[in-house]
Amino acid sequence: MIYGVIFGANSYEHEISIVSAVVLKKVLKTQKKFIFCDKNKEFFLIDEEKMNAKTFSSGDYKKEKALALKRGGFFIKTMLGEKKLDIDIAINIVHGKDGEDGKIAALLDFYGVKYIGPRIEASVLSFNKVLTKLYAESVGVKTLDYKVLNLHKEQNISLDFPCILKPARLGSSIGISIVKDESELKYAKDVAFEFDEDVVVEKFVSNIKEYNLAGCMIGEKMEFSIIEEPKKNEILDFEQKYLGFSESSKVSEANISEELKQKLRDSFTKIYNHLFKGALIRCDFFVIDDEVYLNEINPNPGSLANYLFEDFTNTVDNLAKNIELEKQIKIDYTFIHSINGQKGKL
Amino acid sequence: MIYGVIFGANSYEHEISIVSAVVLKKVLKTQKKFIFCDKNKEFFLIDEEKMNAKTFSSGDYKKEKALALKRGGFFIKTMLGEKKLDIDIAINIVHGKDGEDGKIAALLDFYGVKYIGPRIEASVLSFNKVLTKLYAESVGVKTLDYKVLNLHKEQNISLDFPCILKPARLGSSIGISIVKDESELKYAKDVAFEFDEDVVVEKFVSNIKEYNLAGCMIGEKMEFSIIEEPKKNEILDFEQKYLGFSESSKVSEANISEELKQKLRDSFTKIYNHLFKGALIRCDFFVIDDEVYLNEINPNPGSLANYLFEDFTNTVDNLAKNIELEKQIKIDYTFIHSINGQKGKL
Repeated sequence: MIYGVIFGANSYEHEISIVSAVVLKKVLKTQKKFIFCDKNKEFFLIDEEKMNAKTFSSGDYKKEKALALKRGGFFIKTMLGEKKLDIDIAINIVHGKDGEDGKIAALLDFYGVKYIGPRIEASVLSFNKVLTKLYAESVGVKTLDYKVLNLHKEQNISLDFPCILKPARLGSSIGISIVKDESELKYAKDVAFEFDEDVVVEKFVSNIKEYNLAGCMIGEKMEFSIIEEPKKNEILDFEQKYLGFSESSKVSEANISEELKQKLRDSFTKIYNHLFKGALIRCDFFVIDDEVYLNEINPNPGSLANYLFEDFTNTVDNLAKNIELEKQIKIDYTFIHSINGQKGKL
Repeated sequence: MIYGVIFGANSYEHEISIVSAVVLKKVLKTQKKFIFCDKNKEFFLIDEEKMNAKTFSSGDYKKEKALALKRGGFFIKTMLGEKKLDIDIAINIVHGKDGEDGKIAALLDFYGVKYIGPRIEASVLSFNKVLTKLYAESVGVKTLDYKVLNLHKEQNISLDFPCILKPARLGSSIGISIVKDESELKYAKDVAFEFDEDVVVEKFVSNIKEYNLAGCMIGEKMEFSIIEEPKKNEILDFEQKYLGFSESSKVSEANISEELKQKLRDSFTKIYNHLFKGALIRCDFFVIDDEVYLNEINPNPGSLANYLFEDFTNTVDNLAKNIELEKQIKIDYTFIHSINGQKGKL
């Protein structure tokens, strides 16, 4: 199995995606090619030796081979024309915009490239926190009560404090504020609206119990990671969150009852629900009074949440073997022939 | 304003999209280029003279100029390299898969091409009828009660008859059956599951009042078409539905009270709701006991519903002028520099 790791793109989490790719270089014990999408949407094949931060921050990546994404795969431009890049399956590890909003998925589906990652629908439903809530409720998983503020609408919404404001369409804690009272609200709104025209407001619960669980469906069977209780400092900021996984070291399992573990796995299964087929996702849950609430779905979790799996390479290999291309439709122009028969008009 | 009309692609409605493009050739009174996406996802620039059914059904389109979609636009391959196709804005008139599921939108957003059409989120929420219902309810528009059958799940769902079965992700009446009693159910399920793994079941109401309304947001202002009461014969089949609009003749306004018209426009506005910015959509509504229910959203309606507008070209031009490219994010590698400062590791 040769993987094509796609990373970068035009996202607030562009740099995090580079970190994820560097971690995958270390932890995924199979042959890999590294496909960098730069902020301008140009693709480059990065030599494994050059997979380090400096290659990207210095702009040196531009000296690497350019790739074109077309029907059937990525192609290397050569003097004589083009040569198809030899990969069996791509891994979408672009975080945030472009990677988790459905664009990379759409490109790969459109051009017929197999990939590990959420499909378009799954991307959209996890990228937008409001849609995540609608979806979760519809499959029987609770989420915290919320209100939505919109930049364009005159709204008279009363909020309770303390609350937490989150731009609807960003991961990685960017633009998120905890608001203790009315006096802090305006600034928090300004910050959040910098990033999105929709802002989700939830009641802030301090010392809330939080558990992360990753997994994927292989064939018709769910495969789960261990359950982690993430460390936290009120709220994980951007750096804390990612310095964490960039270590690629294993974490230890949360010290909770088997019953609660099962509840978390059941909620995960309801969320995954065929919709996420093809993806290895991480769900972040809250637990309040023994009830499970979905906080968020990470359809391309940092470094694919490798640190939560016993045998990460094996899990990814099994997932990869079960992935199929989008079904193509046969087109035979019988309809046009029939219109022409009836009307001779077109 | 020079439009690039994108049509075709790998969809059950591939041929309908060709009809739509031929109609736009006639009714859109501005300069146009015709960009055909064939079933294999290859793009061709079709000479206006050759915009007729035979060009496509005979395969002659392959003799036309090939186009490559890349950063900034479509490019014509020439002997000496490439030349950018001179268009101001694309119109996505691909119906069904590829066009209305978010793929074309994703490609155009990704590569920075302005277009008329739904964005990815809007596409996903209108393409999947279950998500359409969740979305409509969330913005305060009613839909008919429903159940969802899934191909992969053992389900014990009791249905009332007569009911109507619809594949969750198809437009154009394909795969839809009216089921009068239990004896017709198995066949109808088999038909619907041919097209989708999720099937929506609604109570079938004969002689239900149906009204179609198209529109778009220009700046912050809604612009509406007239309201049409479509003719019907129990349920419009594929051919009836499209032979209709291929005429490109005007229809007359439904004979209903100004109050009901306003209710329909209000519901349309709630659905459109910024989410559909950039698109000219048609919403199909039911009215039962003076209450408005959303039936479906057509984010790329047949021939852009030109026959419903007083001055179609003017509406499209005004919409086009207000469309912006997706905002790009500045990436400056400060985060990677800071990690390296702290840990010297990457």
